[in-house]
Amino acid sequence: MADSYVHELRVRYGECDPQGIVFNANYLLYFDVAFTELWRDAIGPWQEMNDRGFDAVVGSAALVFRSPARFDDVLGIELRIEELGRSSINTSIRISRGGELLVEGALHHVVVSTGDFKPVAMPAWIRTGLERYA
Amino acid sequence: MADSYVHELRVRYGECDPQGIVFNANYLLYFDVAFTELWRDAIGPWQEMNDRGFDAVVGSAALVFRSPARFDDVLGIELRIEELGRSSINTSIRISRGGELLVEGALHHVVVSTGDFKPVAMPAWIRTGLERYA
Amino acid sequence: MADSYVHELRVRYGECDPQGIVFNANYLLYFDVAFTELWRDAIGPWQEMNDRGFDAVVGSAALVFRSPARFDDVLGIELRIEELGRSSINTSIRISRGGELLVEGALHHVVVSTGDFKPVAMPAWIRTGLERYA
Amino acid sequence: MADSYVHELRVRYGECDPQGIVFNANYLLYFDVAFTELWRDAIGPWQEMNDRGFDAVVGSAALVFRSPARFDDVLGIELRIEELGRSSINTSIRISRGGELLVEGALHHVVVSTGDFKPVAMPAWIRTGLERYA
Repeated sequence: MADSYVHELRVRYGECDPQGIVFNANYLLYFDVAFTELWRDAIGPWQEMNDRGFDAVVGSAALVFRSPARFDDVLGIELRIEELGRSSINTSIRISRGGELLVEGALHHVVVSTGDFKPVAMPAWIRTGLERYA
Repeated sequence: MADSYVHELRVRYGECDPQGIVFNANYLLYFDVAFTELWRDAIGPWQEMNDRGFDAVVGSAALVFRSPARFDDVLGIELRIEELGRSSINTSIRISRGGELLVEGALHHVVVSTGDFKPVAMPAWIRTGLERYA
Repeated sequence: MADSYVHELRVRYGECDPQGIVFNANYLLYFDVAFTELWRDAIGPWQEMNDRGFDAVVGSAALVFRSPARFDDVLGIELRIEELGRSSINTSIRISRGGELLVEGALHHVVVSTGDFKPVAMPAWIRTGLERYA
Repeated sequence: MADSYVHELRVRYGECDPQGIVFNANYLLYFDVAFTELWRDAIGPWQEMNDRGFDAVVGSAALVFRSPARFDDVLGIELRIEELGRSSINTSIRISRGGELLVEGALHHVVVSTGDFKPVAMPAWIRTGLERYA
Protein backbone atom coordinates (compact mmCIF):
# COMPACT_ATOMS: atom_id res chain seq x y z
CA MET A 1 0.00 0.00 0.00
CA ALA A 2 1.33 3.37 -1.02
CA ASP A 3 1.90 6.12 1.49
CA SER A 4 1.59 9.87 1.28
CA TYR A 5 4.24 12.33 2.44
CA VAL A 6 3.36 15.17 4.82
CA HIS A 7 5.42 18.33 5.31
CA GLU A 8 4.45 20.79 8.03
CA LEU A 9 5.13 24.51 7.97
CA ARG A 10 3.98 27.57 9.85
CA VAL A 11 2.42 30.51 7.95
CA ARG A 12 4.63 33.61 8.02
CA TYR A 13 3.23 37.11 8.59
CA GLY A 14 4.63 38.42 5.31
CA GLU A 15 2.84 35.65 3.39
CA CYS A 16 -0.58 37.00 4.42
CA ASP A 17 -2.49 39.76 2.65
CA PRO A 18 -4.75 42.61 3.80
CA GLN A 19 -7.65 40.16 4.15
CA GLY A 20 -5.54 38.55 6.89
CA ILE A 21 -5.21 35.31 4.92
CA VAL A 22 -2.41 33.63 2.96
CA PHE A 23 -2.04 35.38 -0.44
CA ASN A 24 -3.04 32.86 -3.12
CA ALA A 25 0.31 32.76 -4.96
CA ASN A 26 2.03 31.67 -1.76
CA TYR A 27 0.24 28.31 -1.82
CA LEU A 28 2.13 27.53 -5.01
CA LEU A 29 5.30 28.42 -3.10
CA TYR A 30 4.20 26.00 -0.34
CA PHE A 31 3.65 23.27 -2.97
CA ASP A 32 7.27 23.76 -4.08
CA VAL A 33 8.66 23.70 -0.54
CA ALA A 34 6.77 20.49 0.25
CA PHE A 35 7.79 18.80 -3.01
CA THR A 36 11.44 19.61 -2.24
CA GLU A 37 11.06 17.95 1.15
CA LEU A 38 9.35 14.87 -0.35
CA TRP A 39 12.29 14.66 -2.76
CA ARG A 40 14.78 14.89 0.13
CA ASP A 41 12.97 12.11 1.93
CA ALA A 42 12.48 9.87 -1.12
CA ILE A 43 15.68 10.45 -3.08
CA GLY A 44 17.98 12.99 -1.40
CA PRO A 45 18.74 16.72 -1.53
CA TRP A 46 17.60 18.45 -4.76
CA GLN A 47 21.15 19.63 -5.46
CA GLU A 48 22.43 16.05 -5.55
CA MET A 49 20.06 15.34 -8.46
CA ASN A 50 21.41 18.43 -10.24
CA ASP A 51 24.97 17.25 -9.60
CA ARG A 52 24.09 13.96 -11.31
CA GLY A 53 22.88 15.88 -14.40
CA PHE A 54 19.13 15.91 -13.82
CA ASP A 55 16.57 18.52 -12.88
CA ALA A 56 12.77 18.51 -12.53
CA VAL A 57 10.80 21.46 -13.90
CA VAL A 58 7.15 22.29 -13.31
CA GLY A 59 5.07 21.85 -16.46
CA SER A 60 1.68 22.75 -15.00
CA ALA A 61 -0.04 23.42 -11.71
CA ALA A 62 -3.60 23.63 -10.43
CA LEU A 63 -5.03 24.94 -7.17
CA VAL A 64 -8.50 24.88 -5.62
CA PHE A 65 -8.99 27.20 -2.63
CA ARG A 66 -11.58 25.84 -0.18
CA SER A 67 -10.91 27.77 3.02
CA PRO A 68 -8.24 30.32 3.96
CA ALA A 69 -5.13 29.77 6.08
CA ARG A 70 -4.06 32.55 8.45
CA PHE A 71 -0.90 33.95 10.04
CA ASP A 72 0.75 31.53 12.48
CA ASP A 73 -1.36 28.53 11.37
CA VAL A 74 0.58 25.27 11.25
CA LEU A 75 -0.31 23.61 7.94
CA GLY A 76 0.07 20.00 6.89
CA ILE A 77 0.94 19.64 3.21
CA GLU A 78 0.19 16.10 2.06
CA LEU A 79 1.68 14.90 -1.23
CA ARG A 80 0.91 11.74 -3.18
CA ILE A 81 2.62 10.65 -6.39
CA GLU A 82 -0.33 9.88 -8.67
CA GLU A 83 1.48 8.84 -11.83
CA LEU A 84 5.03 8.26 -13.04
CA GLY A 85 5.54 8.46 -16.81
CA ARG A 86 8.73 8.08 -18.83
CA SER A 87 9.86 11.53 -17.75
CA SER A 88 6.79 12.98 -16.02
CA ILE A 89 5.68 13.05 -12.39
CA ASN A 90 2.08 13.84 -11.40
CA THR A 91 1.60 14.79 -7.77
CA SER A 92 -1.60 15.58 -5.89
CA ILE A 93 -1.47 17.94 -2.92
CA ARG A 94 -3.78 18.64 -0.01
CA ILE A 95 -3.13 21.44 2.48
CA SER A 96 -4.98 21.17 5.75
CA ARG A 97 -5.05 22.69 9.22
CA GLY A 98 -5.99 20.19 11.86
CA GLY A 99 -8.59 18.03 10.16
CA GLU A 100 -9.83 20.83 7.88
CA LEU A 101 -8.96 20.74 4.17
CA LEU A 102 -7.98 24.23 2.96
CA VAL A 103 -6.40 23.87 -0.49
CA GLU A 104 -6.23 21.05 -3.03
CA GLY A 105 -3.93 21.02 -5.99
CA ALA A 106 -1.70 19.21 -8.42
CA LEU A 107 1.78 19.61 -9.86
CA HIS A 108 3.06 18.10 -13.08
CA HIS A 109 6.86 17.85 -13.19
CA VAL A 110 9.08 16.84 -16.09
CA VAL A 111 12.53 15.35 -15.51
CA VAL A 112 15.09 17.10 -17.73
CA SER A 113 18.79 17.07 -18.42
CA THR A 114 20.71 19.94 -16.80
CA GLY A 115 22.62 20.28 -20.08
CA ASP A 116 19.78 21.41 -22.36
CA PHE A 117 16.70 21.29 -20.13
CA LYS A 118 15.12 18.75 -22.52
CA PRO A 119 12.96 15.91 -21.12
CA VAL A 120 14.84 12.68 -20.45
CA ALA A 121 13.85 9.23 -19.26
CA MET A 122 13.67 9.21 -15.49
CA PRO A 123 16.62 7.24 -14.06
CA ALA A 124 15.82 4.23 -11.83
CA TRP A 125 17.07 5.90 -8.63
CA ILE A 126 14.49 8.66 -9.07
CA ARG A 127 11.65 6.29 -10.04
CA THR A 128 12.32 3.89 -7.20
CA GLY A 129 12.47 6.68 -4.64
CA LEU A 130 9.21 8.27 -5.75
CA GLU A 131 7.35 4.94 -5.95
CA ARG A 132 7.40 4.91 -2.17
CA TYR A 133 4.80 7.71 -2.26
CA ALA A 134 2.96 6.48 -5.38
CA MET B 1 -16.87 41.70 -30.74
CA ALA B 2 -15.25 41.32 -27.34
CA ASP B 3 -11.77 42.56 -26.61
CA SER B 4 -9.01 41.26 -24.38
CA TYR B 5 -7.12 43.35 -21.83
CA VAL B 6 -3.32 43.43 -21.80
CA HIS B 7 -1.16 44.50 -18.85
CA GLU B 8 2.59 44.84 -19.31
CA LEU B 9 5.16 44.41 -16.57
CA ARG B 10 8.90 43.94 -16.33
CA VAL B 11 10.34 40.88 -14.54
CA ARG B 12 12.14 41.84 -11.31
CA TYR B 13 15.47 40.28 -10.32
CA GLY B 14 14.11 39.00 -6.99
CA GLU B 15 11.31 37.15 -8.84
CA CYS B 16 13.84 34.90 -10.61
CA ASP B 17 15.31 31.70 -9.20
CA PRO B 18 18.72 30.01 -9.40
CA GLN B 19 17.84 28.65 -12.87
CA GLY B 20 17.74 32.33 -13.92
CA ILE B 21 14.03 32.14 -14.72
CA VAL B 22 10.87 33.44 -13.06
CA PHE B 23 10.01 31.22 -10.08
CA ASN B 24 6.74 29.41 -10.89
CA ALA B 25 4.70 30.83 -7.97
CA ASN B 26 5.40 34.37 -9.21
CA TYR B 27 3.30 33.79 -12.33
CA LEU B 28 0.28 33.45 -10.05
CA LEU B 29 1.30 36.80 -8.53
CA TYR B 30 1.45 38.25 -12.07
CA PHE B 31 -2.07 36.89 -12.75
CA ASP B 32 -3.28 38.80 -9.70
CA VAL B 33 -1.53 42.04 -10.66
CA ALA B 34 -2.97 41.89 -14.18
CA PHE B 35 -6.49 41.06 -12.95
CA THR B 36 -6.35 44.09 -10.62
CA GLU B 37 -5.43 46.30 -13.58
CA LEU B 38 -8.22 44.84 -15.76
CA TRP B 39 -10.59 45.62 -12.88
CA ARG B 40 -9.30 49.21 -12.66
CA ASP B 41 -9.82 49.63 -16.39
CA ALA B 42 -13.24 47.95 -16.54
CA ILE B 43 -14.79 48.99 -13.23
CA GLY B 44 -12.47 51.13 -11.11
CA PRO B 45 -9.92 50.71 -8.29
CA TRP B 46 -10.32 47.47 -6.31
CA GLN B 47 -10.76 49.41 -3.06
CA GLU B 48 -13.82 51.20 -4.44
CA MET B 49 -15.52 47.81 -4.86
CA ASN B 50 -14.64 46.97 -1.24
CA ASP B 51 -16.03 50.33 -0.11
CA ARG B 52 -19.31 49.41 -1.81
CA GLY B 53 -19.48 46.14 0.17
CA PHE B 54 -18.13 43.66 -2.37
CA ASP B 55 -14.95 41.67 -2.82
CA ALA B 56 -13.78 39.04 -5.31
CA VAL B 57 -11.90 36.00 -4.02
CA VAL B 58 -9.98 33.40 -6.03
CA GLY B 59 -11.72 30.01 -5.99
CA SER B 60 -9.30 28.15 -8.24
CA ALA B 61 -6.34 28.72 -10.53
CA ALA B 62 -4.49 26.78 -13.21
CA LEU B 63 -1.16 27.38 -14.91
CA VAL B 64 0.64 25.75 -17.85
CA PHE B 65 4.32 26.63 -18.22
CA ARG B 66 5.44 26.53 -21.88
CA SER B 67 8.68 28.53 -21.87
CA PRO B 68 10.48 30.50 -19.16
CA ALA B 69 10.56 34.27 -18.66
CA ARG B 70 13.82 35.83 -17.48
CA PHE B 71 15.05 38.84 -15.49
CA ASP B 72 14.30 42.15 -17.20
CA ASP B 73 11.90 40.64 -19.76
CA VAL B 74 8.89 42.81 -20.53
CA LEU B 75 5.85 40.53 -20.44
CA GLY B 76 2.41 41.05 -21.90
CA ILE B 77 -0.33 39.52 -19.74
CA GLU B 78 -3.51 39.11 -21.79
CA LEU B 79 -6.79 38.52 -19.96
CA ARG B 80 -10.15 37.53 -21.38
CA ILE B 81 -13.36 37.10 -19.39
CA GLU B 82 -14.60 33.69 -20.53
CA GLU B 83 -17.75 33.35 -18.48
CA LEU B 84 -19.82 35.43 -16.07
CA GLY B 85 -22.13 33.44 -13.77
CA ARG B 86 -24.45 34.68 -11.05
CA SER B 87 -21.49 35.35 -8.77
CA SER B 88 -18.57 33.76 -10.61
CA ILE B 89 -15.99 35.13 -13.07
CA ASN B 90 -13.89 32.85 -15.26
CA THR B 91 -10.83 34.48 -16.80
CA SER B 92 -8.28 33.04 -19.21
CA ILE B 93 -4.73 34.38 -19.17
CA ARG B 94 -1.85 34.26 -21.62
CA ILE B 95 1.60 35.59 -20.74
CA SER B 96 3.87 36.27 -23.67
CA ARG B 97 7.16 37.97 -24.52
CA GLY B 98 7.10 39.52 -27.96
CA GLY B 99 5.14 37.03 -30.03
CA GLU B 100 6.15 34.02 -27.91
CA LEU B 101 3.59 32.42 -25.59
CA LEU B 102 5.22 31.55 -22.23
CA VAL B 103 2.46 30.72 -19.77
CA GLU B 104 -1.26 29.98 -20.11
CA GLY B 105 -3.67 29.91 -17.25
CA ALA B 106 -7.07 30.53 -15.78
CA LEU B 107 -8.53 32.14 -12.68
CA HIS B 108 -11.96 31.51 -11.21
CA HIS B 109 -13.18 34.35 -8.98
CA VAL B 110 -16.28 34.49 -6.80
CA VAL B 111 -17.91 37.81 -5.90
CA VAL B 112 -18.60 37.93 -2.17
CA SER B 113 -20.01 40.32 0.41
CA THR B 114 -17.34 42.04 2.53
CA GLY B 115 -19.58 41.38 5.53
CA ASP B 116 -19.42 37.59 5.67
CA PHE B 117 -17.34 36.65 2.60
CA LYS B 118 -20.29 34.61 1.28
CA PRO B 119 -21.04 34.55 -2.49
CA VAL B 120 -23.54 37.16 -3.66
CA ALA B 121 -25.16 38.01 -6.99
CA MET B 122 -22.81 40.18 -9.00
CA PRO B 123 -24.16 43.76 -9.13
CA ALA B 124 -24.87 45.25 -12.56
CA TRP B 125 -21.98 47.74 -12.38
CA ILE B 126 -19.50 44.86 -12.05
CA ARG B 127 -21.16 42.72 -14.74
CA THR B 128 -21.41 45.57 -17.23
CA GLY B 129 -17.79 46.57 -16.72
CA LEU B 130 -16.45 43.04 -17.17
CA GLU B 131 -18.58 42.34 -20.25
CA ARG B 132 -16.31 44.69 -22.13
CA TYR B 133 -13.62 42.01 -21.93
CA ALA B 134 -15.99 39.03 -22.25
CA MET C 1 23.75 36.44 32.34
CA ALA C 2 21.47 37.18 29.39
CA ASP C 3 20.81 34.61 26.73
CA SER C 4 20.25 34.91 23.02
CA TYR C 5 17.43 33.24 21.10
CA VAL C 6 18.15 31.13 18.01
CA HIS C 7 15.61 30.23 15.32
CA GLU C 8 16.58 27.79 12.58
CA LEU C 9 15.13 27.74 9.09
CA ARG C 10 15.94 26.18 5.76
CA VAL C 11 16.42 28.39 2.67
CA ARG C 12 13.65 27.86 0.10
CA TYR C 13 14.35 27.63 -3.63
CA GLY C 14 12.05 30.54 -4.45
CA GLU C 15 13.98 32.77 -2.03
CA CYS C 16 17.16 32.50 -4.12
CA ASP C 17 18.01 34.66 -7.11
CA PRO C 18 19.81 34.04 -10.43
CA GLN C 19 23.18 34.30 -8.65
CA GLY C 20 22.08 31.16 -6.78
CA ILE C 21 22.03 33.00 -3.45
CA VAL C 22 19.32 34.31 -1.13
CA PHE C 23 17.89 37.54 -2.57
CA ASN C 24 18.84 40.36 -0.19
CA ALA C 25 15.27 41.46 0.70
CA ASN C 26 14.53 37.94 1.95
CA TYR C 27 16.94 38.36 4.87
CA LEU C 28 14.64 41.08 6.19
CA LEU C 29 11.81 38.54 5.88
CA TYR C 30 13.96 36.07 7.87
CA PHE C 31 14.52 38.73 10.56
CA ASP C 32 10.74 39.05 10.90
CA VAL C 33 10.16 35.29 11.06
CA ALA C 34 12.82 34.89 13.76
CA PHE C 35 11.53 37.86 15.79
CA THR C 36 8.03 36.33 15.72
CA GLU C 37 9.46 33.08 17.11
CA LEU C 38 11.44 34.88 19.83
CA TRP C 39 8.17 36.61 20.75
CA ARG C 40 6.33 33.27 20.92
CA ASP C 41 9.05 31.86 23.16
CA ALA C 42 9.37 34.92 25.41
CA ILE C 43 5.78 36.17 25.61
CA GLY C 44 3.40 34.07 23.51
CA PRO C 45 1.82 34.06 20.02
CA TRP C 46 1.87 37.45 18.28
CA GLN C 47 -1.93 37.39 17.92
CA GLU C 48 -2.37 37.17 21.69
CA MET C 49 -0.58 40.51 22.03
CA ASN C 50 -2.91 42.00 19.38
CA ASP C 51 -5.91 40.58 21.24
CA ARG C 52 -4.73 42.44 24.35
CA GLY C 53 -4.62 45.73 22.42
CA PHE C 54 -0.91 45.98 21.56
CA ASP C 55 1.17 45.62 18.44
CA ALA C 56 4.87 46.08 17.63
CA VAL C 57 5.83 47.86 14.42
CA VAL C 58 9.27 48.08 12.81
CA GLY C 59 10.69 51.60 12.96
CA SER C 60 14.01 50.90 11.30
CA ALA C 61 16.22 48.05 10.11
CA ALA C 62 19.83 47.57 9.10
CA LEU C 63 21.59 44.69 7.35
CA VAL C 64 25.25 43.90 6.59
CA PHE C 65 25.83 41.11 4.07
CA ARG C 66 29.10 39.25 4.75
CA SER C 67 28.70 36.01 2.81
CA PRO C 68 25.80 34.53 0.84
CA ALA C 69 23.39 31.80 1.92
CA ARG C 70 22.26 29.29 -0.70
CA PHE C 71 19.28 27.07 -1.49
CA ASP C 72 18.73 24.32 1.08
CA ASP C 73 21.15 25.82 3.62
CA VAL C 74 19.99 25.51 7.22
CA LEU C 75 20.50 28.92 8.83
CA GLY C 76 20.70 29.83 12.49
CA ILE C 77 19.19 33.25 13.23
CA GLU C 78 20.41 34.52 16.58
CA LEU C 79 18.57 37.39 18.24
CA ARG C 80 19.56 39.43 21.26
CA ILE C 81 17.50 42.20 22.85
CA GLU C 82 20.02 45.05 23.12
CA GLU C 83 17.87 47.75 24.68
CA LEU C 84 14.36 48.17 26.04
CA GLY C 85 13.07 51.75 26.16
CA ARG C 86 9.69 53.04 27.33
CA SER C 87 8.08 51.76 24.12
CA SER C 88 11.04 50.73 21.96
CA ILE C 89 12.84 47.42 21.49
CA ASN C 90 16.30 47.24 19.90
CA THR C 91 17.31 43.80 18.68
CA SER C 92 20.58 42.64 17.14
CA ILE C 93 20.58 39.74 14.71
CA ARG C 94 23.23 37.38 13.40
CA ILE C 95 22.51 34.85 10.67
CA SER C 96 25.01 32.04 10.36
CA ARG C 97 25.49 28.67 8.67
CA GLY C 98 27.48 26.27 10.79
CA GLY C 99 30.09 28.47 12.44
CA GLU C 100 30.18 30.99 9.57
CA LEU C 101 28.59 34.43 10.04
CA LEU C 102 26.65 35.42 6.89
CA VAL C 103 24.52 38.45 7.76
CA GLU C 104 24.43 40.88 10.69
CA GLY C 105 21.62 43.28 11.35
CA ALA C 106 19.39 45.17 13.70
CA LEU C 107 15.68 45.83 14.11
CA HIS C 108 14.11 48.70 16.02
CA HIS C 109 10.50 48.00 17.06
CA VAL C 110 8.01 50.34 18.67
CA VAL C 111 5.15 49.03 20.82
CA VAL C 112 1.88 50.68 19.75
CA SER C 113 -1.79 50.56 20.62
CA THR C 114 -3.91 48.58 18.13
CA GLY C 115 -6.48 51.37 18.37
CA ASP C 116 -4.51 54.21 16.80
CA PHE C 117 -1.06 52.69 16.14
CA LYS C 118 0.51 55.37 18.40
CA PRO C 119 3.46 54.42 20.66
CA VAL C 120 2.51 53.35 24.17
CA ALA C 121 4.43 52.37 27.27
CA MET C 122 5.39 48.71 27.05
CA PRO C 123 3.30 46.67 29.51
CA ALA C 124 5.15 44.67 32.18
CA TRP C 125 4.29 41.27 30.63
CA ILE C 126 6.07 42.27 27.41
CA ARG C 127 9.08 43.81 29.20
CA THR C 128 9.53 40.86 31.54
CA GLY C 129 9.32 38.36 28.71
CA LEU C 130 11.86 40.14 26.53
CA GLU C 131 14.31 40.71 29.41
CA ARG C 132 15.06 37.01 29.25
CA TYR C 133 16.91 37.67 25.97
CA ALA C 134 18.26 41.11 26.95
CA MET D 1 24.29 70.40 -10.05
CA ALA D 2 23.60 66.72 -9.57
CA ASP D 3 20.22 65.22 -10.22
CA SER D 4 18.32 62.46 -8.52
CA TYR D 5 16.60 59.57 -10.31
CA VAL D 6 12.95 58.73 -9.60
CA HIS D 7 11.28 55.40 -10.35
CA GLU D 8 7.53 55.06 -9.88
CA LEU D 9 5.74 51.81 -9.07
CA ARG D 10 2.32 50.79 -7.85
CA VAL D 11 1.99 48.70 -4.65
CA ARG D 12 0.71 45.16 -5.37
CA TYR D 13 -1.92 43.46 -3.22
CA GLY D 14 0.36 40.52 -2.42
CA GLU D 15 3.03 42.91 -1.09
CA CYS D 16 0.74 44.08 1.73
CA ASP D 17 0.29 42.37 5.08
CA PRO D 18 -2.64 41.82 7.46
CA GLN D 19 -2.21 45.37 8.78
CA GLY D 20 -3.14 46.46 5.23
CA ILE D 21 0.28 48.04 4.68
CA VAL D 22 3.37 47.10 2.66
CA PHE D 23 5.28 44.34 4.49
CA ASN D 24 8.61 45.82 5.62
CA ALA D 25 10.87 43.42 3.65
CA ASN D 26 9.20 44.51 0.41
CA TYR D 27 10.67 48.00 0.69
CA LEU D 28 14.11 46.42 0.28
CA LEU D 29 12.72 44.73 -2.85
CA TYR D 30 11.54 48.17 -4.06
CA PHE D 31 15.03 49.58 -3.44
CA ASP D 32 16.44 46.87 -5.71
CA VAL D 33 13.85 47.46 -8.45
CA ALA D 34 14.53 51.21 -8.43
CA PHE D 35 18.32 50.75 -8.42
CA THR D 36 18.02 48.45 -11.46
CA GLU D 37 16.06 51.17 -13.27
CA LEU D 38 18.57 53.87 -12.32
CA TRP D 39 21.27 51.57 -13.72
CA ARG D 40 19.31 51.11 -16.97
CA ASP D 41 18.95 54.88 -17.31
CA ALA D 42 22.53 55.74 -16.35
CA ILE D 43 24.50 52.84 -17.88
CA GLY D 44 22.23 50.30 -19.58
CA PRO D 45 20.50 46.98 -18.79
CA TRP D 46 21.97 45.13 -15.81
CA GLN D 47 22.65 42.06 -17.96
CA GLU D 48 24.91 44.07 -20.28
CA MET D 49 27.17 44.82 -17.30
CA ASN D 50 27.25 41.09 -16.47
CA ASP D 51 28.10 40.29 -20.10
CA ARG D 52 31.08 42.64 -19.83
CA GLY D 53 32.34 40.73 -16.76
CA PHE D 54 31.07 42.93 -13.92
CA ASP D 55 28.36 42.66 -11.30
CA ALA D 56 27.30 44.83 -8.36
CA VAL D 57 26.42 43.16 -5.06
CA VAL D 58 24.75 44.70 -2.02
CA GLY D 59 27.13 44.99 0.95
CA SER D 60 24.75 46.67 3.37
CA ALA D 61 21.34 48.30 3.55
CA ALA D 62 19.44 50.50 5.98
CA LEU D 63 15.77 51.46 6.17
CA VAL D 64 13.81 53.93 8.30
CA PHE D 65 10.02 53.51 8.21
CA ARG D 66 8.21 56.83 8.73
CA SER D 67 4.69 56.15 7.45
CA PRO D 68 3.11 53.12 5.76
CA ALA D 69 2.32 52.64 2.07
CA ARG D 70 -0.89 50.81 1.16
CA PHE D 71 -2.27 48.61 -1.62
CA ASP D 72 -2.63 50.46 -4.93
CA ASP D 73 -0.56 53.47 -3.82
CA VAL D 74 1.70 54.88 -6.51
CA LEU D 75 5.12 55.42 -4.93
CA GLY D 76 7.99 57.59 -6.07
CA ILE D 77 11.37 56.05 -5.27
CA GLU D 78 14.06 58.73 -5.42
CA LEU D 79 17.70 57.65 -5.62
CA ARG D 80 20.80 59.76 -5.27
CA ILE D 81 24.38 58.49 -5.64
CA GLU D 82 26.05 59.84 -2.49
CA GLU D 83 29.55 58.51 -2.94
CA LEU D 84 31.61 56.60 -5.51
CA GLY D 85 34.69 54.84 -4.16
CA ARG D 86 37.21 52.68 -6.01
CA SER D 87 34.71 49.82 -6.18
CA SER D 88 31.88 50.99 -3.91
CA ILE D 89 28.64 52.86 -4.60
CA ASN D 90 26.67 54.55 -1.80
CA THR D 91 23.08 55.41 -2.69
CA SER D 92 20.47 57.22 -0.61
CA ILE D 93 16.80 56.41 -1.18
CA ARG D 94 13.56 58.19 -0.34
CA ILE D 95 10.16 56.60 -0.97
CA SER D 96 7.23 58.98 -1.01
CA ARG D 97 3.56 59.11 -1.95
CA GLY D 98 2.54 62.49 -3.28
CA GLY D 99 4.55 64.92 -1.18
CA GLU D 100 4.67 62.62 1.87
CA LEU D 101 7.93 60.88 2.78
CA LEU D 102 7.26 57.25 3.80
CA VAL D 103 10.61 55.43 3.91
CA GLU D 104 14.22 56.56 3.88
CA GLY D 105 17.14 54.29 3.30
CA ALA D 106 20.56 53.57 1.91
CA LEU D 107 22.24 50.87 -0.14
CA HIS D 108 25.95 50.16 -0.30
CA HIS D 109 26.97 48.26 -3.45
CA VAL D 110 30.35 46.79 -4.35
CA VAL D 111 31.40 46.29 -7.97
CA VAL D 112 32.79 42.78 -8.42
CA SER D 113 34.14 40.57 -11.17
CA THR D 114 31.68 37.94 -12.42
CA GLY D 115 34.57 35.47 -12.39
CA ASP D 116 35.25 35.29 -8.67
CA PHE D 117 32.85 37.86 -7.16
CA LYS D 118 35.85 39.76 -5.72
CA PRO D 119 35.77 43.59 -5.61
CA VAL D 120 37.35 45.29 -8.61
CA ALA D 121 38.02 48.89 -9.61
CA MET D 122 34.88 50.36 -11.15
CA PRO D 123 35.40 50.80 -14.91
CA ALA D 124 35.03 54.33 -16.35
CA TRP D 125 31.77 53.55 -18.19
CA ILE D 126 30.11 52.68 -14.87
CA ARG D 127 31.58 55.65 -12.98
CA THR D 128 30.70 58.17 -15.68
CA GLY D 129 27.14 56.89 -15.94
CA LEU D 130 26.52 57.01 -12.20
CA GLU D 131 28.08 60.48 -11.79
CA ARG D 132 24.99 61.87 -13.51
CA TYR D 133 23.03 61.08 -10.34
CA ALA D 134 25.86 61.86 -7.91
